[in-house]
Amino acid sequence: MLNPFDIVIFGGGGDLALRKLLPAMYRAYQEGNLPEGSRILPTVREESKKQEYIETAQQALKSFLGEGEFNNRDWKAFSQYLVPVVINVTEPDGHWDELRVILQQDAEDKSRVFYLSLPPAVYGTCCEILSKKKLITATSRVVVEKPIGYCGESAEEINGKIAQYFAEEQIFRIDHYLGKETVQNLMALRFSNALFENLWDAKSIDNIQISISETVGLESRAGFYDKAGALRDMVQNHLLQLLCLVAMESPHKLNANSIRAEKLKVLEALRPLVDEQVDNNIVRGQYVPGELSGKLVPGYLEELGEGSSKTETYVAIRAHIDNWRWAGVPFYLRTGKRMKKRCAEIVVEYKPVSHNVYDESVGPIQPNRLVIRLQPEETIQLTLMSKRMDNLNMELQPVTLNIELSEQYGSSFHSDAYKRLMLDAAANNPALFIHRDEVRQAWQWIDPIIERWQSKGTPALYRAGSWGPEDADELLQENNHTWFNVGEQV
Amino acid sequence: MLNPFDIVIFGGGGDLALRKLLPAMYRAYQEGNLPEGSRILPTVREESKKQEYIETAQQALKSFLGEGEFNNRDWKAFSQYLVPVVINVTEPDGHWDELRVILQQDAEDKSRVFYLSLPPAVYGTCCEILSKKKLITATSRVVVEKPIGYCGESAEEINGKIAQYFAEEQIFRIDHYLGKETVQNLMALRFSNALFENLWDAKSIDNIQISISETVGLESRAGFYDKAGALRDMVQNHLLQLLCLVAMESPHKLNANSIRAEKLKVLEALRPLVDEQVDNNIVRGQYVPGELSGKLVPGYLEELGEGSSKTETYVAIRAHIDNWRWAGVPFYLRTGKRMKKRCAEIVVEYKPVSHNVYDESVGPIQPNRLVIRLQPEETIQLTLMSKRMDNLNMELQPVTLNIELSEQYGSSFHSDAYKRLMLDAAANNPALFIHRDEVRQAWQWIDPIIERWQSKGTPALYRAGSWGPEDADELLQENNHTWFNVGEQV
Repeated sequence: MLNPFDIVIFGGGGDLALRKLLPAMYRAYQEGNLPEGSRILPTVREESKKQEYIETAQQALKSFLGEGEFNNRDWKAFSQYLVPVVINVTEPDGHWDELRVILQQDAEDKSRVFYLSLPPAVYGTCCEILSKKKLITATSRVVVEKPIGYCGESAEEINGKIAQYFAEEQIFRIDHYLGKETVQNLMALRFSNALFENLWDAKSIDNIQISISETVGLESRAGFYDKAGALRDMVQNHLLQLLCLVAMESPHKLNANSIRAEKLKVLEALRPLVDEQVDNNIVRGQYVPGELSGKLVPGYLEELGEGSSKTETYVAIRAHIDNWRWAGVPFYLRTGKRMKKRCAEIVVEYKPVSHNVYDESVGPIQPNRLVIRLQPEETIQLTLMSKRMDNLNMELQPVTLNIELSEQYGSSFHSDAYKRLMLDAAANNPALFIHRDEVRQAWQWIDPIIERWQSKGTPALYRAGSWGPEDADELLQENNHTWFNVGEQV
Repeated sequence: MLNPFDIVIFGGGGDLALRKLLPAMYRAYQEGNLPEGSRILPTVREESKKQEYIETAQQALKSFLGEGEFNNRDWKAFSQYLVPVVINVTEPDGHWDELRVILQQDAEDKSRVFYLSLPPAVYGTCCEILSKKKLITATSRVVVEKPIGYCGESAEEINGKIAQYFAEEQIFRIDHYLGKETVQNLMALRFSNALFENLWDAKSIDNIQISISETVGLESRAGFYDKAGALRDMVQNHLLQLLCLVAMESPHKLNANSIRAEKLKVLEALRPLVDEQVDNNIVRGQYVPGELSGKLVPGYLEELGEGSSKTETYVAIRAHIDNWRWAGVPFYLRTGKRMKKRCAEIVVEYKPVSHNVYDESVGPIQPNRLVIRLQPEETIQLTLMSKRMDNLNMELQPVTLNIELSEQYGSSFHSDAYKRLMLDAAANNPALFIHRDEVRQAWQWIDPIIERWQSKGTPALYRAGSWGPEDADELLQENNHTWFNVGEQV
């Protein structure tokens, strides 16, 4: 069982805190994973917000928890853990002393988590004040959200600032995709089954696709998004992190240091894409008005309210990992907004059988496939070929096996990536967080792509509600592959 | 669709015909697989039996079909196919001419199947009369049931006699285990999935167990059984045939000749067991009184009504196939009467993962396992390790996937090995039947075992209702293995 901890949520009134972090902590409480004596300290900017906070939190839980999760009894008990505080994170005023008084009520060695649910631009200032006000104890950790920086240089700058006040072991860079149960299970499958252990390389695997498709458009993030684009917002962090977990060598032990070392090796082995290699292996796109789930939706420029923008809302990449295990296997990475369906999944397509012993009458023999889906639902499925029940004719058909069976989910258990990661931070378990070296290495691969795009070309257009630009289909056709689009798989 | 055929069932009033063959043909009719113009001609010994036969058949179907399968409308239609005839199979009397007249009512090239549901001792005589009476046409086939012979020599004699009248292509030696849907599917899995194709050898597989356990004792077969024993009754045919299908190399095409050639190669590569190798690698047993499903049941000698017998009712064998694919992999073959549970299954146990990256706290990592069950139900299951849903602690658990899903079984379809094989014989498809060379080769491996047993030792005793003699457990312990007993698997 976890020891009691304090978690200060900077930006406690913000969207992330209300939508994700409070529900995560409420679930932890319901499951008995929020130790008595723990405190959740959301920061707000004004005294009036602080007065309202308990009410705000209750409303947020009612809105953002799943059906049947909220109940008054648990809420009453959970609300006792909430200690809202007033703080302006960029102003070292007296409020910080109040926070110190509250934190110092408990023992010096109590775990202290500072969750910076803030814009990266203020990470440095916030950490600096935390340090000045002597709030950083030996058992303090800081959790920072992606995206860190706009390029390798700015990321280094932000990480450098945090590093002035926190040791690397104290810095928990979060990527909530890594907290998903299915992502954990992907590792469990790889490292506890000879069946997968022996078939996880270029000899057995034909290609791997990692897709995160969203149906939403810009939402309220226009200002940020138009400066960032899909490559920074999704590829540099989420897609590359998932790529690392799929492709990494087996660590000798599944501990934080070994996992991070193996992930770093994958990033280092990623074949660089520079100059015309960027044009040849990457498709960027931007959505124009289209139909999504039967409704007309505006295009990117219309949402943005600008006459023009080169910002990509879609990226498809053909990547290669230049090492012994993966030589010649294409890794297709794809993400987009306003896509036909919302889905995040990893598709491992095995090579076809080496020889067909059947007549054509048995039907096509589809290659085996392992599909790890992270959202909207979390499932892992293995597709095999099997005989169709019949008397005289031999016919083959694909059979899909659910490795993560719904029965496994206890009714009281809610898969919640933030819950898991917040508790991991409280427990000082950094295995699923990102090391500074990984951030640096990821940007090193991303920077030349941004550079190329700034000097050359514009995004291909795609209709909102489609699966992206045609160029992306052609990219895979060059290798005789096709995208697995959710809901359209055989 | 199959062409119309005539099938003469010699021994039409016998147990096999009533329990298995008639229900099989009725099911074929219900599924639309009994072509119009086909005839089923069961032979009985007396005119009175012939008069009663339709009534006998109806009763048999009512007793031996599954729930809901029998209905009067289908029975009416099906009974039109039934043409009982009087024949004494060892007497070339006038009845044979009547049979000829009936058969010659239809075209000369109509498929004609002679199903010898008879003791092997009269196969020869029956075939001889069929020939003399000119009943064997170019499109005639003969189906013979196991076991053929009591040793290599007597089997050769029987096969030799049949061969005087039928060409090898016309002789269909049936083993109903090979007609099971799951056995078909075993081949489909092996030859249409890269996942299995690449992991079907000594590098990946630790051991393979093939078990056929029965709960019945002697039943009405005492006279036959005490002369035969489990080795002849079950190992020489069923177990070795299943072994062949599991272990054979991929044929270049899945046709009858290629499959038989590959099966023969397995039998040829079976490491001979002679002299003390028999003692060291085979355990034979005989049951004594015990408790089975809560009831006391008598021992073998009590059932037999004799004071002593060396006949084995149980056999466990550690076999090796000396070829590149299987070097060093033990194949454990086991069969017994009065065992704890009725079950026939093939268990493929993979090697453990090569290295454990987890702490002990995650629990034991069970090797992957593929279980092909032939009876009582037909299922194929793959067991993998997967992560248990949880927050902070990593725990692994085995997950069992059903490859043959119950949804695949249409409600109108009944898996029935005899149905399949009888229709195969009618369609002249010998892929699932046994070639004379295979019978010869199987006996060649069995004969030295019998020889040794005749000169040395007696069966180990085991309680009725147990899993066999302790010696059999020790046999596997020598290799650090344990039997997978149905219902006791983790």
